[in-house]
Amino acid sequence: MKHTKIKDLLSSSKTAQEVNAKGWVRTFRNNQFIALNDGSTINNIQCVVDFENTSEETLKRITTGAAISVTGELVESKGAGQKYEIQVTKLEILGDSDAEKFPMQPKKHSLEFLRENAHLRVRTNAFGAIMRVRSVLSFAVHNYFQQKGFVYVNTPIITGSDAEGAGEMFKVTSLPFDNPPRNEDGKIDYKKDFFGKETNLTVSGQLEGETFAMALGQIYTFGPTFRAENSNTSRHLAEFWMIEPEVAFNDLNDNMDLAEDFIQYVIKYTLDKCPDDLKFLDSRLTEEEKSKPQTERSEMSLLERLNFVLSTNFKRVSYTEAIDILRDCTPNKKKKFNYIINEWGADLQSEHERYLVEKHFKCPVILFDYPANIKAFYMRLNEDGKTVRAMDILFPGIGEIVGGSQREERYDVLVEKMKALGIAEEELWWYLDTRRFGSAVHSGFGLGFERLVLFVTGMSNIRDVIPFPRTPMNAEF
Amino acid sequence: MKHTKIKDLLSSSKTAQEVNAKGWVRTFRNNQFIALNDGSTINNIQCVVDFENTSEETLKRITTGAAISVTGELVESKGAGQKYEIQVTKLEILGDSDAEKFPMQPKKHSLEFLRENAHLRVRTNAFGAIMRVRSVLSFAVHNYFQQKGFVYVNTPIITGSDAEGAGEMFKVTSLPFDNPPRNEDGKIDYKKDFFGKETNLTVSGQLEGETFAMALGQIYTFGPTFRAENSNTSRHLAEFWMIEPEVAFNDLNDNMDLAEDFIQYVIKYTLDKCPDDLKFLDSRLTEEEKSKPQTERSEMSLLERLNFVLSTNFKRVSYTEAIDILRDCTPNKKKKFNYIINEWGADLQSEHERYLVEKHFKCPVILFDYPANIKAFYMRLNEDGKTVRAMDILFPGIGEIVGGSQREERYDVLVEKMKALGIAEEELWWYLDTRRFGSAVHSGFGLGFERLVLFVTGMSNIRDVIPFPRTPMNAEF
Repeated sequence: MKHTKIKDLLSSSKTAQEVNAKGWVRTFRNNQFIALNDGSTINNIQCVVDFENTSEETLKRITTGAAISVTGELVESKGAGQKYEIQVTKLEILGDSDAEKFPMQPKKHSLEFLRENAHLRVRTNAFGAIMRVRSVLSFAVHNYFQQKGFVYVNTPIITGSDAEGAGEMFKVTSLPFDNPPRNEDGKIDYKKDFFGKETNLTVSGQLEGETFAMALGQIYTFGPTFRAENSNTSRHLAEFWMIEPEVAFNDLNDNMDLAEDFIQYVIKYTLDKCPDDLKFLDSRLTEEEKSKPQTERSEMSLLERLNFVLSTNFKRVSYTEAIDILRDCTPNKKKKFNYIINEWGADLQSEHERYLVEKHFKCPVILFDYPANIKAFYMRLNEDGKTVRAMDILFPGIGEIVGGSQREERYDVLVEKMKALGIAEEELWWYLDTRRFGSAVHSGFGLGFERLVLFVTGMSNIRDVIPFPRTPMNAEF
Repeated sequence: MKHTKIKDLLSSSKTAQEVNAKGWVRTFRNNQFIALNDGSTINNIQCVVDFENTSEETLKRITTGAAISVTGELVESKGAGQKYEIQVTKLEILGDSDAEKFPMQPKKHSLEFLRENAHLRVRTNAFGAIMRVRSVLSFAVHNYFQQKGFVYVNTPIITGSDAEGAGEMFKVTSLPFDNPPRNEDGKIDYKKDFFGKETNLTVSGQLEGETFAMALGQIYTFGPTFRAENSNTSRHLAEFWMIEPEVAFNDLNDNMDLAEDFIQYVIKYTLDKCPDDLKFLDSRLTEEEKSKPQTERSEMSLLERLNFVLSTNFKRVSYTEAIDILRDCTPNKKKKFNYIINEWGADLQSEHERYLVEKHFKCPVILFDYPANIKAFYMRLNEDGKTVRAMDILFPGIGEIVGGSQREERYDVLVEKMKALGIAEEELWWYLDTRRFGSAVHSGFGLGFERLVLFVTGMSNIRDVIPFPRTPMNAEF
């Protein structure tokens, strides 16, 4: 008999049928009630064992974590909290789980302990929910762009270019590390490496993405990117997934419209598709916040916050306006910020971003028109000659979730900027070609996918929203 | 005035309206007819220039590759080959393209030349079509699995494990390569590397995927994987995208059913969504084959071949049967194979796979139950003690497109196999945990995405179906 997924059993409209379910035991109460989960939903199905006609030996093997197969009648449940249950007529142990050794006990584990058991934490309610939500969010991303006719582009992971400057890069090589081939002058002979040159892991697919946007019009990437930075924070990973749309003929305003519409779409989609998982994560967060002092608790629950973002226009504020607000705000005057904002040109720290979003505007904020010298070389210079058409989207509790810009489409201006920064033209000949041949206004942005998952799940550490996090000193599994 | 995508203009139901289009000039004939393309479709829109009222200087700048904006009335075209055209009233040059320097001339270029210009080749008909088809195929993959309730899992790219053995790995490091820190015994001190240990680029997400399948039931990965192998062939890339579903409680037969249904779905989806691009690629292939001798030409056109795969059950053949067929076939007896098949146990080469698919069965073939010693350690041993529940799917013109198996779910058998192969248990403690706690029958497979794109587009070199190919001695862009 083919087994039926628990999600389908629980939403069945037909009782009194014989069914088979397979899954893992979450709990076993009174030698009678099994809570069975198969990962198709956060909800367990209750399986009622006929303990009088089941051998003592079998009953002993129904332990937390054991894989079992149950056959029986699907009936309406008399118990509270579930609509249906299975009256078990046949029970088979597929795989035992030694109750004393199984790390995922039916109790609350610390997030640190669960990270050390990333291969098993997904068997808990919280991580099952997070990973299902992550998957649905991913699909929402593809759905959004494909519906609008964007072309999905897989930009290269291994790159021979290190000019993008978004961050420190990991080296990739197949040379014998211990004793690499060397030139006559003693330098490592990268001509003998796999690719015949030095290569790194990409920090962004933007530059390659731009070349495709200048042919296909609207493109997006969604793939892994890397930073070899020793950032041991709750917001940074060495390996993370990034979404980078790029659109020909879009200016910065179109770019802001796209980013806002996109974020609202994917959140709405996930709210619609994952009600049970999000309800669980909402309760989880509320529970967790009870341990915090009243003043540190969120004003809104998770679900309220997600719905709020859907119903609110993101506040668009120029960098210059933001500096004025920050310079005059109480924490700045009282020197509560670690970095005091004195004048125009200062780079904003996360404390400033959070003040703007969480205290001043109390909604998502898009900052735009940043000073040129704190932003990347490819951003379009404004007519004022000192600001660029950059934008960052700041989210409550998360900080920067999107960074984007209108790109410098003028060949001469771009080359001059590269020269000033010491970026060799030969390195980026292909990028410059897009400005040599049929250049046009275009814009794009990057969204760190895990930060979006953080926001949607209400988790607070980015290591808890990716299956196997990569961080300094940690590449287990 | 907001511009409209050319795809939408060409499928418009409303003529005699003023429209704006932006795109790149493909050709300009008789100082009057612009073929304009914006990447939204393979089809150009004809823009008729009022050359008597357009300055000589502007007309000169309408060159192949130039980005332009045209405004005018959308009218039914009197010319052949298009339904609508734009009677241009306003034309703006957005970005020039020096006709003498622009590499993508309106003529046939060699595929080698186009590979060297991978940043511009996507502006040609063929590569625009390939990249749109690739994107739609990607989306079909997500659509298929998400509809069935599979959870998308991003398994790690950087891995501390090198036990999987699917191929040679690239090293990843942030140590100074030229002068790495060393221990007292002179060995490199990987404890000082970013992750505190030796790390590589993944060759497969399967083992991590299995841990998630044993919690969420049905999962799939779709991400980049790597091989540091010096394979300079038309079927190998050093960096390629792989799809790896893994399903708890599926045996090998379920696995074959899943793979066949999946492949048929994504091809059907792409046929439905990309009629124009596939029609172009179909003609392109037919044209290309004209240069081949009659005997080497395909019996079917591209579209016929795709439709054939949809309407055919994949032939399921055991390895043992396949060996019998091969041993007795004419090319083997006449010693036309490079590797002569003499006895059971021989590893099949691509010449043998192609014979089975293209000459003997003339349809996609699933080979199963391979000798244990030519397959990976994690495949389930059959009761005969010498074969494993492996399967490979072989496609005409492509060879192996899928490799999969039922996994060895028995802890003791798995540990014994690892011991025999010298794979340290400490390396894969987390993998073994899935067999320690609630183990169950499960199966999965890996599909090399670029081989699928090769098959669907009818291209013959895998470097032409990925945006920026990574191969030995090549990591440009």
